[in-house]
Amino acid sequence: MKRLGLLFAATFTLLSNVCSAEVGESIFVQGVPGKVPACAMCHGARGEGGGEGLFPRLAGQPAAYTETQLKAFRDGKRSSAVMAPTVAAMNDAEVSAVAAFLARQQAPFSAPPKAEPSRLRHGQSVVALGRWDKGVPACTSCHGPALQGVAPAFPALVGQSPEYLSAQLRAYKSGERAPGPLELMGRLARALSSEDIEDVALYIASLSAGTRPEIPRPASPEAYVVQPQSPDAFVPPPEAAIPDGAYGELVRLGQNIFEDTPKYAAPYAGNTLSCRNCHLDRGRDAKSSPMWAAYVHYPEYRKKDGLVNTIQMRVQGCFRYSQNGTVPDADSRELTALVTYFYWMASGLPVGVRPKAAGYPKLDPPKDLPSPERGAGIYATNCALCHGDDGLGRRAGEQQVFPPLWGAQSFNWGAGMHQVDRAAGFIKTSMPYGADGTLTDQQAWDVAAYVNSRPRPQDPRFTDSVERTRELYHADHEYDYYGREVDGLVLGAPEARDKRSR
Amino acid sequence: MKRLGLLFAATFTLLSNVCSAEVGESIFVQGVPGKVPACAMCHGARGEGGGEGLFPRLAGQPAAYTETQLKAFRDGKRSSAVMAPTVAAMNDAEVSAVAAFLARQQAPFSAPPKAEPSRLRHGQSVVALGRWDKGVPACTSCHGPALQGVAPAFPALVGQSPEYLSAQLRAYKSGERAPGPLELMGRLARALSSEDIEDVALYIASLSAGTRPEIPRPASPEAYVVQPQSPDAFVPPPEAAIPDGAYGELVRLGQNIFEDTPKYAAPYAGNTLSCRNCHLDRGRDAKSSPMWAAYVHYPEYRKKDGLVNTIQMRVQGCFRYSQNGTVPDADSRELTALVTYFYWMASGLPVGVRPKAAGYPKLDPPKDLPSPERGAGIYATNCALCHGDDGLGRRAGEQQVFPPLWGAQSFNWGAGMHQVDRAAGFIKTSMPYGADGTLTDQQAWDVAAYVNSRPRPQDPRFTDSVERTRELYHADHEYDYYGREVDGLVLGAPEARDKRSR
Repeated sequence: MKRLGLLFAATFTLLSNVCSAEVGESIFVQGVPGKVPACAMCHGARGEGGGEGLFPRLAGQPAAYTETQLKAFRDGKRSSAVMAPTVAAMNDAEVSAVAAFLARQQAPFSAPPKAEPSRLRHGQSVVALGRWDKGVPACTSCHGPALQGVAPAFPALVGQSPEYLSAQLRAYKSGERAPGPLELMGRLARALSSEDIEDVALYIASLSAGTRPEIPRPASPEAYVVQPQSPDAFVPPPEAAIPDGAYGELVRLGQNIFEDTPKYAAPYAGNTLSCRNCHLDRGRDAKSSPMWAAYVHYPEYRKKDGLVNTIQMRVQGCFRYSQNGTVPDADSRELTALVTYFYWMASGLPVGVRPKAAGYPKLDPPKDLPSPERGAGIYATNCALCHGDDGLGRRAGEQQVFPPLWGAQSFNWGAGMHQVDRAAGFIKTSMPYGADGTLTDQQAWDVAAYVNSRPRPQDPRFTDSVERTRELYHADHEYDYYGREVDGLVLGAPEARDKRSR
Repeated sequence: MKRLGLLFAATFTLLSNVCSAEVGESIFVQGVPGKVPACAMCHGARGEGGGEGLFPRLAGQPAAYTETQLKAFRDGKRSSAVMAPTVAAMNDAEVSAVAAFLARQQAPFSAPPKAEPSRLRHGQSVVALGRWDKGVPACTSCHGPALQGVAPAFPALVGQSPEYLSAQLRAYKSGERAPGPLELMGRLARALSSEDIEDVALYIASLSAGTRPEIPRPASPEAYVVQPQSPDAFVPPPEAAIPDGAYGELVRLGQNIFEDTPKYAAPYAGNTLSCRNCHLDRGRDAKSSPMWAAYVHYPEYRKKDGLVNTIQMRVQGCFRYSQNGTVPDADSRELTALVTYFYWMASGLPVGVRPKAAGYPKLDPPKDLPSPERGAGIYATNCALCHGDDGLGRRAGEQQVFPPLWGAQSFNWGAGMHQVDRAAGFIKTSMPYGADGTLTDQQAWDVAAYVNSRPRPQDPRFTDSVERTRELYHADHEYDYYGREVDGLVLGAPEARDKRSR
């Protein structure tokens, strides 16, 4: 009976979307006489863009993004001498219909612009790697691995003209265009130079649909001489310095596993998380437990398992808990690749000196006891954009773009990040992604409490009861929710998992 | 028939030794009237020593050592106002008889001298660790792990008075006593300070029989702050800086495995070699492929197995080839302990910078083709003292003191040290032990050729034939003997192994 209801609801949603799209097509192609001019006049019959790049591609954009933009033009929040009068008379239903139509279109791709290879390489580097020296993450990390857009908030970038792309980035930079959700694009565009902007636009416009911007690989590796470096002012070697040959290939494999664990370490991946989700900039970012800092202070005794851990054993712990997966052998190719990547990244750091950047930043104790209730509100405003109201993250096709923060596909109750204090430190310094530092300490504590009082997979060290497991492994963690009751459910108890995290 | 002959020969040797010892007892206790005064008058009834330390303990000394000393007194090569006239009239048979008697005695041990703990600790450090900063190896490395003496050339030191021990070291230092075989004791005593000598004598005299001088462990670890260090002027942390706790215990276990592999890594040891036999000063010595230098340049691609090797994989290679043993798992406690020891030893070195000390020193190509024939003569003069004419090394009881250089208990045909060029570099810079640098380059090449043209265990990569195995794994090694014919036997061929290395 319940199933039948669900089926009915799903069918209804599908049909109403189809109807809406048909209405939208009519408005888009023909306009609404006396009220709305035909969009297709400028943007092309199926929203493929036109006017030699003046009019952007709209086809295939997430409906919610298009809706937001149309309403912004209509309501004066985004300025355009052309768009403002065009949409002035559209009502919300018409806006939704047009957006639904456009979301279903596939745009033909225009011919790539002519550009110097060095400028394309620079653009590719910003797109695929970001400019972390200026706090700018890779474009792909929000707009999707092929820049195909990630619903609801992140538009597709492929298929746009270089003129349109650079114009929008310049408008974000100057403030002419409103900075968007969490002011992300305003922040990022201001951090980019004019050269960055032009080259990013050129590179994106050069992509054909489905192409994933990969880390650019020079024809021959950059000459790079490893020099002893200070552990507290450390800069890992540039990507372009990864050498050719078997060693370089293993470094690259490690980097790939770090970037996309479910794909490159498939036999061991237990969820849709990747290493880079907790260790930003592929383990390079000094604020989120960088791998270069970890490499040089292992082997080290860990209270967690009561053993001296090699770096291999430490990473095995990530697979067991954060990945909720299967532990790779210490000499498996995957683990060797990761360790080789870390070793390469740590080039020049002194062995046995723990850099200040090691581990996650620690916050002072919270003024008020962390509150999941307050955290829920903060989450809705600051986190749901990427991680979803349901905490399940966002996907683009088969690819997990934004990580799930709870539920069956997230880290389990044994992972370090389930500790509220650890998560609070990470959130305060690294989140919201691209807008870090905008939460207060107390907000970070509260939202960490919210995220970590949601259901997630069982602690793999689970004994016979949640009470005993808490006593054995969670007693030291002052703010942890494992074994505590929230909303009438004991977190970590098998019945809680059955009902909620599956 | 052959067996019966061997049994007869063995029985004859035993009986003649017993007879000789009986004659020796008579001379020692009663003297030879009108010719030799009774030794026991000064040295005690069973050679236990006397005169408040003036007359040394003779009981239990290797017969060959006593013989050499008595003849030296007699022939004016060792000077003593007392001993010279005493032994003047002894013939060689009488000398042998006395030496044989003394070798069978067990001395009672005198009461330990009173000494300040700090002086004993310093003496212990020199005895157990040496003073490698001055080129002085540990006393235990030649005189046996309990200083019990190693026949034929190295006398027992335990049971001697501090006065006698320090007097001898002073006499070696001043040249008053001849410097002994390979001038070893002359060299070493000259390198020691007067304080070293007095404290070593005090410490040795404080030992009871069977006590093994261990690395002294301070009441609490020395405060030691790891500082970034230059890879080419590197000094590993002092032993006393190994911390307490689980991490320090694992470092110590690694050090113990390194020091005595057959004992501490028993499941994996395939012969009587220990890591320290090729990596002197327990892996710290800059001239013999130190472990601190190795640690920082792995993971690295190795042509030998065509893989990027982690440090664990590299050490697995040592177990397979140099140890001719069983490969420990990458995450076995033994391998983890070794790697943790290396990590600790590399404290402060920059990751990824290959120190000049990495690997073994390389010699220029030899002027003349290395010659096993010439090498045999050099070996007899410079190497057989410790390694034996048969190359099987020397033992003290259950303990291998000097490593076997060929035969069933030595490294196999896959080990790096079987390569003549590698061995020549090691021999030139590190051998003879305690008298390194005394061979010419050509002598080092020749003796390396001699040692590495003796039979040894099969290459574990052996395919179906020695020709094919040579082609696959030895073709690059210009001077190697694997698969070559020497003295009518093809080295590495199964029949050669059957006849000679077992």
